[in-house]
Amino acid sequence: MKIFLDCIPCFVRQALDSARLATDDEQIHEKVMREVLRLAVDLDMSQSPPAIGQQIHRLIRKLVGQNDPYHQIKERFNNLALKLYPELEECVRESEDSFATAVRLAIAGNIIDFGVKTSLAESDVEKTIEQSLNGLLDDNTIQEFKDAVTKAEKILYLADNAGEIVFDRLLIAQLPLEKVTVVVKAEPVINDATMEDAKTAGLTNIVEVIDNGSDGPGTILETCSQTFRARFENADLIIAKGQGNYETLSNIDKNIFFILKAKCPVIARDLGCEVGEMILRKSKALNDIVDLVKESE
Amino acid sequence: MKIFLDCIPCFVRQALDSARLATDDEQIHEKVMREVLRLAVDLDMSQSPPAIGQQIHRLIRKLVGQNDPYHQIKERFNNLALKLYPELEECVRESEDSFATAVRLAIAGNIIDFGVKTSLAESDVEKTIEQSLNGLLDDNTIQEFKDAVTKAEKILYLADNAGEIVFDRLLIAQLPLEKVTVVVKAEPVINDATMEDAKTAGLTNIVEVIDNGSDGPGTILETCSQTFRARFENADLIIAKGQGNYETLSNIDKNIFFILKAKCPVIARDLGCEVGEMILRKSKALNDIVDLVKESE
Repeated sequence: MKIFLDCIPCFVRQALDSARLATDDEQIHEKVMREVLRLAVDLDMSQSPPAIGQQIHRLIRKLVGQNDPYHQIKERFNNLALKLYPELEECVRESEDSFATAVRLAIAGNIIDFGVKTSLAESDVEKTIEQSLNGLLDDNTIQEFKDAVTKAEKILYLADNAGEIVFDRLLIAQLPLEKVTVVVKAEPVINDATMEDAKTAGLTNIVEVIDNGSDGPGTILETCSQTFRARFENADLIIAKGQGNYETLSNIDKNIFFILKAKCPVIARDLGCEVGEMILRKSKALNDIVDLVKESE
Repeated sequence: MKIFLDCIPCFVRQALDSARLATDDEQIHEKVMREVLRLAVDLDMSQSPPAIGQQIHRLIRKLVGQNDPYHQIKERFNNLALKLYPELEECVRESEDSFATAVRLAIAGNIIDFGVKTSLAESDVEKTIEQSLNGLLDDNTIQEFKDAVTKAEKILYLADNAGEIVFDRLLIAQLPLEKVTVVVKAEPVINDATMEDAKTAGLTNIVEVIDNGSDGPGTILETCSQTFRARFENADLIIAKGQGNYETLSNIDKNIFFILKAKCPVIARDLGCEVGEMILRKSKALNDIVDLVKESE
């Protein structure tokens, strides 16, 4: 998905939020804003939003002189999610359809996205959990997703954010663990999950976790490591969490299930849904396979 | 009030909204965005938001090749307000305190501000009217405002937006008409009221109406005509409607009552109020006089 003009004011706002997180120095805030505006003037509009985000957040980290401005926020939301985890795990266990409930909770966790919004209260997370357990989600698509998991031999689970990754653990625990590799970012960018967060979430104890070699807030294949790209190529099912992974992989010819909460109007328009909707969506490639099977029947 | 960094993403968003109002040509939208970003890179942060808005909207009008992109919107909201007018007039007439009710309705009209938000439904206006009739507004300040009107000999009423100016008529009708001059913008900018709107609102039939010689979305004295500045200088009471007039006149040493709805977080912070609050506020100069009177008593 390429960038829309609507993304530009959002990036400018995000840059300011990010600079303010990193430092109280207003001169640095102003410098960040001017440099991000300068970068935006000549923006290549054929790039995906995360590809622009990658450049912008590299610039911000350089200007504020910090490698990880969102570190505290990541810790805070990891801790919140870990506090909620036992209760959520019980909710999955006691549910009539544990798999579907785990999918719903994994979507709920996607509210913890500091690219879209910098002010997120703990109560927002709790409210989203409640809404997600009862919100609209197509039973057929859940079944297709379950079938795809059963058939797959090599599953890559592309994680999105810190905090959210604890929610992902609920869904990952429902998958055949020996076939699953979880993927995190190699370097900090916004509040995206890195190896540190995967450890905090307890994922490294139950499943293989690798990084993608990149600091892009999504999966920008051309900036990922050769190792990751080979794993991506060989996987027969990709589970892609969050907006950034949707934006970077929606046009890729692979078997992908996108799992996210649509939080911005541009992505909602691309998905054909309302802002706030829960999304479990097969990639075009997977849809084409289903169509072929139907045709041959 | 000078610009804050928070205003910059808002200006970029406003530029896009404005370009889209003027034309469906996406190449022009992109050109507007790039030029506005270029302008923002070297922004003089000591200016007021309307001074920046003036430059940006001049640029947009030039790039889209239209003198008045908001013309249709202005007509639409003038018509809406005129449709509501008889009912609102009755509401003022039958009210226990007609003056206070007229102030409340003038504040309600300030919701019609396309600088802050480009999507405003007719139902939003009706909802705001209802809220404003019952919302919090300090009785003492209303009384002080009423007293200031009684004492004044030369009142300038600085109008804000089209549509809103019909609501202003309710309050203007409560003032000593022979002492009042209403001021509109000389050239179109955003949905600010011009002489055409004052005529549509029926104001030119009941009161003197002049323009300020400027295309600034506020009262940027240095870009106003000599004639207006002389009138401003000589007036003993200024009634300043809307955010733009507050932003440009809050530091001016004159007797001013600001009447507005605080619609953006930056202005709300400056006013020390919440977003959405109704504001009737004396200028610092007027407050100083009150303090002097109290000291001499």
